[in-house]
Amino acid sequence: MTIAHGLLPEGLRDRLPPQAEAASRLLHHVIVAINRHGYERVSPPLAEFEESLLGRLKSARKQDLLRFVDPVSQRSLALRPDITGQIGRIATTRLNHRPRPLRLAYGGTVMKLRATQLRPERELMQAGAELIGNDSVAAVIEILGMAVETLKIAGVKEISIDLTLPDLVERLADTTLPIDASKKEKLFAVLDAKDAGGLSELDATGYRPLLEAAGPFDEAIKKLQPMAEKLGFADRLEALKTIRASLDPSVHVTLDPTERHGFEYQTWIGFSLFGSGILGEIGRGGSYTIIHQDKREEQAVGFSLYIDPLVDAGLGQKKSRKLFLPLGHDPEQARAFRQEGWITIAALDEEDDPVRHQCTDILTGGHIKPL
Amino acid sequence: MTIAHGLLPEGLRDRLPPQAEAASRLLHHVIVAINRHGYERVSPPLAEFEESLLGRLKSARKQDLLRFVDPVSQRSLALRPDITGQIGRIATTRLNHRPRPLRLAYGGTVMKLRATQLRPERELMQAGAELIGNDSVAAVIEILGMAVETLKIAGVKEISIDLTLPDLVERLADTTLPIDASKKEKLFAVLDAKDAGGLSELDATGYRPLLEAAGPFDEAIKKLQPMAEKLGFADRLEALKTIRASLDPSVHVTLDPTERHGFEYQTWIGFSLFGSGILGEIGRGGSYTIIHQDKREEQAVGFSLYIDPLVDAGLGQKKSRKLFLPLGHDPEQARAFRQEGWITIAALDEEDDPVRHQCTDILTGGHIKPL
Repeated sequence: MTIAHGLLPEGLRDRLPPQAEAASRLLHHVIVAINRHGYERVSPPLAEFEESLLGRLKSARKQDLLRFVDPVSQRSLALRPDITGQIGRIATTRLNHRPRPLRLAYGGTVMKLRATQLRPERELMQAGAELIGNDSVAAVIEILGMAVETLKIAGVKEISIDLTLPDLVERLADTTLPIDASKKEKLFAVLDAKDAGGLSELDATGYRPLLEAAGPFDEAIKKLQPMAEKLGFADRLEALKTIRASLDPSVHVTLDPTERHGFEYQTWIGFSLFGSGILGEIGRGGSYTIIHQDKREEQAVGFSLYIDPLVDAGLGQKKSRKLFLPLGHDPEQARAFRQEGWITIAALDEEDDPVRHQCTDILTGGHIKPL
Repeated sequence: MTIAHGLLPEGLRDRLPPQAEAASRLLHHVIVAINRHGYERVSPPLAEFEESLLGRLKSARKQDLLRFVDPVSQRSLALRPDITGQIGRIATTRLNHRPRPLRLAYGGTVMKLRATQLRPERELMQAGAELIGNDSVAAVIEILGMAVETLKIAGVKEISIDLTLPDLVERLADTTLPIDASKKEKLFAVLDAKDAGGLSELDATGYRPLLEAAGPFDEAIKKLQPMAEKLGFADRLEALKTIRASLDPSVHVTLDPTERHGFEYQTWIGFSLFGSGILGEIGRGGSYTIIHQDKREEQAVGFSLYIDPLVDAGLGQKKSRKLFLPLGHDPEQARAFRQEGWITIAALDEEDDPVRHQCTDILTGGHIKPL
């Protein structure tokens, strides 16, 4: 085995101790917490046919995937940039016969073509839950409550949630706040840029309250209420209020009704999750539509949690005591200590010593002695 | 999200419940068992520079890797077909400063270019341990004992181990049982084919006892002993006897001194692991040499376990009781039940019922009642 050099491609890295163990521990705890809510684990493959992955990602382009030609099938495959779409595929094919709502959980690696400024890695660890066949307020409450509970189990403090209404602008533009079809894309761009001036230019000042409302939940709802009643989306605000009331009061909630970035395939509700002292988003989710092969539509709601920012924030680490086992120790006794949770380091020769291995304890005469 | 179809590329598949959960549970148990022996987790990336991966795999060729051009670095990357080589890279670069022996653990996905008849998948899950800086008998005993202990924890019954002496033939050919350099490759081929007649044709009948010895451990050692004493490898047999004596007597051990297939980079010892009722190998390992950037050589010994055959054999599955939570249940009480290990399924509307979700119990008036 020759080691050419230690360089790795941009955006790919080694996780070393103690972070590697923290990542694996966090993933395990998150998945177990999700399983406990009746979400059954599925594991789709790392790579799929390129067309198949693209078909399921509304805004994805070929150029955004890490692609390769598979010498075996002679077809273009791509590494998954996300797992949610694969879960939708499984729900509509191999688990199509299962009664709804169908609760599925997943955890694994995704590969992004490009890193972002906040997350310089392109290989990331995701875990999540998808509730398929229901996107009611009760379903959203289950998903959001589970996301919060899971993040707490992972050790996240002061969780905040940014709520959005991803399809609201489009719905208004098509119904009670009509805008010329040719101006629609412009309207989206102006709202995405939070550009109130742009709204005047577009003759679309009716949308201004949506921009002005963005902020802490209670105030945002108060500001939106008159517009919602006038334009027929008061039911949305009622739904949001019910959802907010279901959440632990210590969770900080904001509402930005026009935020669509990263919510390209979400329907009536979307959310991003943040935690105190953790850089960037730690999860996101919302409601969406799955389209079956027979074109039948099915509503769903789910979330993904991002393990890497949690690891980077130091979560998931556990200090363990390490027991040095001198030559000639009783292997059965050592096994019993490990079953109790001890980490043991066995001497390999007379020169081996507990200090080199940073042991905290030593076994002498069958007894554990702190060092 | 449009689902084009449910087809997956050859050798890639979805793991569904309950196998997906079993795989994740087995991987977790295996890694935790390895950690308890003082092996610290590292997580190298799924893809590396092609040359870098090739440089570390003695017998690998470019054509054997799943390769792609990374649009970001404009370089050829390849998906890892194995993790051991990556651990060697980490040990000689970022963990070069750590005292030896260095104990590292890993667990993750590997991607093979081609499937085999026994394992039709190309995406496989591996976990393992590498003891770097020592390949003594004591080191092999630690590694092999740990492999057996870990497989038992995973639920494997009647473990058997096939021992091999990967570099023995080459050593003999260079020293006490010399053969013309031009005939060496032929000799390897004849021994690989267990072709005793071929040995006569090569005028290399001195190697015949190696072929004849292959079989159950005690008999194999007995058959080899005279040759070993004559040709100066009796120390190897002593080492093997010490290793065998360290193993649980219930473990079935065989020895095939010429077996080299899949042991291309192993040095003095190699082994394959099998379990009752499980198709094919469930792990392998042995001693090997790591070459540092400054050409310094370091001895190591390690093993990899294969999670997929264990899952296919039904290991890692756990039957859980499922508790149905009717509308209006106390969420704090439900959380407490989950903390005790219950799986809960919450009703989303009045029509939701416990039977559809295959619940075993229902919560009524704050009490659990079996269904």
